[in-house]
Amino acid sequence: MTEPCWPDGSVTPIVVRYSECDPVGVAHHAAYVVWLEQARTDRLKQFSTAYRALEEMGIYFVVARLNIRYQKPARYDDHLHVHTRVAAVGRVKIDHEYRIYRGKALLTTAQTTIVCVDGEGKVQPVPD
Amino acid sequence: MTEPCWPDGSVTPIVVRYSECDPVGVAHHAAYVVWLEQARTDRLKQFSTAYRALEEMGIYFVVARLNIRYQKPARYDDHLHVHTRVAAVGRVKIDHEYRIYRGKALLTTAQTTIVCVDGEGKVQPVPD
Amino acid sequence: MTEPCWPDGSVTPIVVRYSECDPVGVAHHAAYVVWLEQARTDRLKQFSTAYRALEEMGIYFVVARLNIRYQKPARYDDHLHVHTRVAAVGRVKIDHEYRIYRGKALLTTAQTTIVCVDGEGKVQPVPD
Amino acid sequence: MTEPCWPDGSVTPIVVRYSECDPVGVAHHAAYVVWLEQARTDRLKQFSTAYRALEEMGIYFVVARLNIRYQKPARYDDHLHVHTRVAAVGRVKIDHEYRIYRGKALLTTAQTTIVCVDGEGKVQPVPD
Repeated sequence: MTEPCWPDGSVTPIVVRYSECDPVGVAHHAAYVVWLEQARTDRLKQFSTAYRALEEMGIYFVVARLNIRYQKPARYDDHLHVHTRVAAVGRVKIDHEYRIYRGKALLTTAQTTIVCVDGEGKVQPVPD
Repeated sequence: MTEPCWPDGSVTPIVVRYSECDPVGVAHHAAYVVWLEQARTDRLKQFSTAYRALEEMGIYFVVARLNIRYQKPARYDDHLHVHTRVAAVGRVKIDHEYRIYRGKALLTTAQTTIVCVDGEGKVQPVPD
Repeated sequence: MTEPCWPDGSVTPIVVRYSECDPVGVAHHAAYVVWLEQARTDRLKQFSTAYRALEEMGIYFVVARLNIRYQKPARYDDHLHVHTRVAAVGRVKIDHEYRIYRGKALLTTAQTTIVCVDGEGKVQPVPD
Repeated sequence: MTEPCWPDGSVTPIVVRYSECDPVGVAHHAAYVVWLEQARTDRLKQFSTAYRALEEMGIYFVVARLNIRYQKPARYDDHLHVHTRVAAVGRVKIDHEYRIYRGKALLTTAQTTIVCVDGEGKVQPVPD
């Protein structure tokens, strides 16, 4: 699945690193959390601004909620595609939805909620 | 909270490592996933067998589901306590529940589902 | 530096992940070790075989020596290039040399020695 | 080796985490870099001040050089001891030396050089 599976979605390619795999020979479940973040910032960059530029403006996002369903394992050197879309935008938070594919096989589904904060960690409205 | 918050719970101390913290100065949200695993295997060891011994018997557990709510951030060198209990045991899977505290402040709540598999990744019943 | 800086070298692009950066705002020094591994297996794949295929044949490589000089820091979302070449091949080991660039700026130099072992960790000759 | 192997050394216990192990079943070589950092800040805390307190005073240390020799592998759930001493103190930098043991078996030796910088990354003298 290299084409977005959602009309307003983005696609981030990930190649599984050796250091991300565990003694069972599959990608460790914590590695997926890093890939989701990569996909989320990729989408942001593609549709608006680099997260790096936001931070320079005093706009930060922290993860408040993370749900992952691991359906099939990923292995070392697998070429994956992380599909990402914005599921909802609130006044101070954004919900994302994710699907991770290897070819046509759906490996993982996930949702996150991120909250907009300032440099001191105080909640602030999501900028346009 | 160094005393178990559940009667059948265990407590795992964690000290936040520098490498686990991100540019905002707080523990990166992926680090918590590793702490939960540490807490889960700690509990297993305390109540039954070391996970290492299980793997040598051909008994593996893979994470199928992970839910985390991040309420307050943890910082470098914070001394945390991860409280862990078994919430449900099915024929092939186990649900765990977690609470992460710094002192009396509740930082994080989480749930996982792990599934028992053999060396080839085929689902098998949870051993007694 | 996107062109190989050595005639027999390879070039691996790396984008610095947010989770790889520390509270000072720069890439944590342990992240470079993962990038070097990525670059080393990239080079192997480009010049001979995927490491994944080698492992399936019972040929493993373990790192015996690692030297890194960190000269300039890398930051979140930086686009880096890791240049890699084989510096020496012995009967049972291979020395690699690395340079990490951001544009024309040399950030890091490194050397590793990897040793060829079998599935039990016993040293064996490097295959042709 | 739970007693310091150097008269002016410190000892940091490390238990190898599952997520730190790779498909060969041993601790990934990048994990050691994190353990060395843990040991280095442990020593600092024991002999002078917590690194966290230093950062609040605008005193930072960055790693400029890292050498590791991996002699024997560490495995999941191994209880290790990292011995650390200061090998040399210069005007702006400090050299540390490390030995990692599992019981009486020496697994790893390492050296690092850290450089004292301010909040902008400019080199400054090491404070007393």
